Amino acid sequence: MQAEPEVAVLRYGHRPGRDDRMTTHVGLTARALGADRVVFPGNAGQSAETVEDITGRFGGPFAVEMTDALDAFIRDWEGVVVHLTMYGERVQDVEDDVRAAHETDPILVVVGGEKVPFEVYEAADYNVGVTNQPHSEVAGLAVFLDRLFEGRELEREWADADRRVIPKATGKRVVDPDAADGE
Amino acid sequence: MQAEPEVAVLRYGHRPGRDDRMTTHVGLTARALGADRVVFPGNAGQSAETVEDITGRFGGPFAVEMTDALDAFIRDWEGVVVHLTMYGERVQDVEDDVRAAHETDPILVVVGGEKVPFEVYEAADYNVGVTNQPHSEVAGLAVFLDRLFEGRELEREWADADRRVIPKATGKRVVDPDAADGE
Repeated sequence: MQAEPEVAVLRYGHRPGRDDRMTTHVGLTARALGADRVVFPGNAGQSAETVEDITGRFGGPFAVEMTDALDAFIRDWEGVVVHLTMYGERVQDVEDDVRAAHETDPILVVVGGEKVPFEVYEAADYNVGVTNQPHSEVAGLAVFLDRLFEGRELEREWADADRRVIPKATGKRVVDPDAADGE
Repeated sequence: MQAEPEVAVLRYGHRPGRDDRMTTHVGLTARALGADRVVFPGNAGQSAETVEDITGRFGGPFAVEMTDALDAFIRDWEGVVVHLTMYGERVQDVEDDVRAAHETDPILVVVGGEKVPFEVYEAADYNVGVTNQPHSEVAGLAVFLDRLFEGRELEREWADADRRVIPKATGKRVVDPDAADGE
């Protein structure tokens, strides 16, 4: 988030068609929950377009990138690499250390697809399990980011949005942010 | 979770084929993050099988149900109904109230699919937004449950599991729980 070292989310692996929706949700979750950037595999163009479209409508800043060199991206990351995996250390045991590191260093959060090679486990500074149960890479990413930012991400503001949802006890209310001052 | 009023998660709406993976992830996330039960629409049999299979292998207790009467299920719920929606009140503003209610009352968490009718907004005691941004129903559910249980769900134990993942800084370790005492 703004005024803090960067947090980027890298989606490791993508099968076009089958994974489109999960990869899109990884990107949208990264955006909504405080990351600054998502990095998709080069074959995930459709998901990249969707996330960019949402950013255009609901605001940023948030960057979407694609690369065919995922391993090099991880290896060359100048900062801390966190790989989310159900085989990793318990998030509640390592989150304080990761948060302390984030005070000075950018964080790359690697979110696996179906097959993550052993090299990724070795390249990571932290392999972290949001539970050691099989569930969802999207759920794991969400809980990890909420804990990393300790809820600050829920207060962030959005620039250059075409529309803004006003929280409401019942029903839906969407306004033009430029006109919202008048409420 | 055990020794607390029940938390059930209801998936509202499902399109077979297109939604299979998301619905499965809703169910697995509910299980992994402390809910006692998931309720799927009657046409989500494939997702129900997957969640039951995981429960059989990784343990429970966790119940999977299906119903064709989602609206009646919500209407007849004896407890508090929380509907997760990006149009709702901010989770950080209402979570204390929901947690207080959960000290005595069962909670039904309704997770929308594509189209949620206005009746669901009206039937809910709380419409809650995990951010007012579009992202992922799985991510919203994960953050909501982690906040509802304040992290207690990460400490829960699993009964009748065939296998158990041992947290590890690098690599993977899976054991037979019945033999794990010897470590």
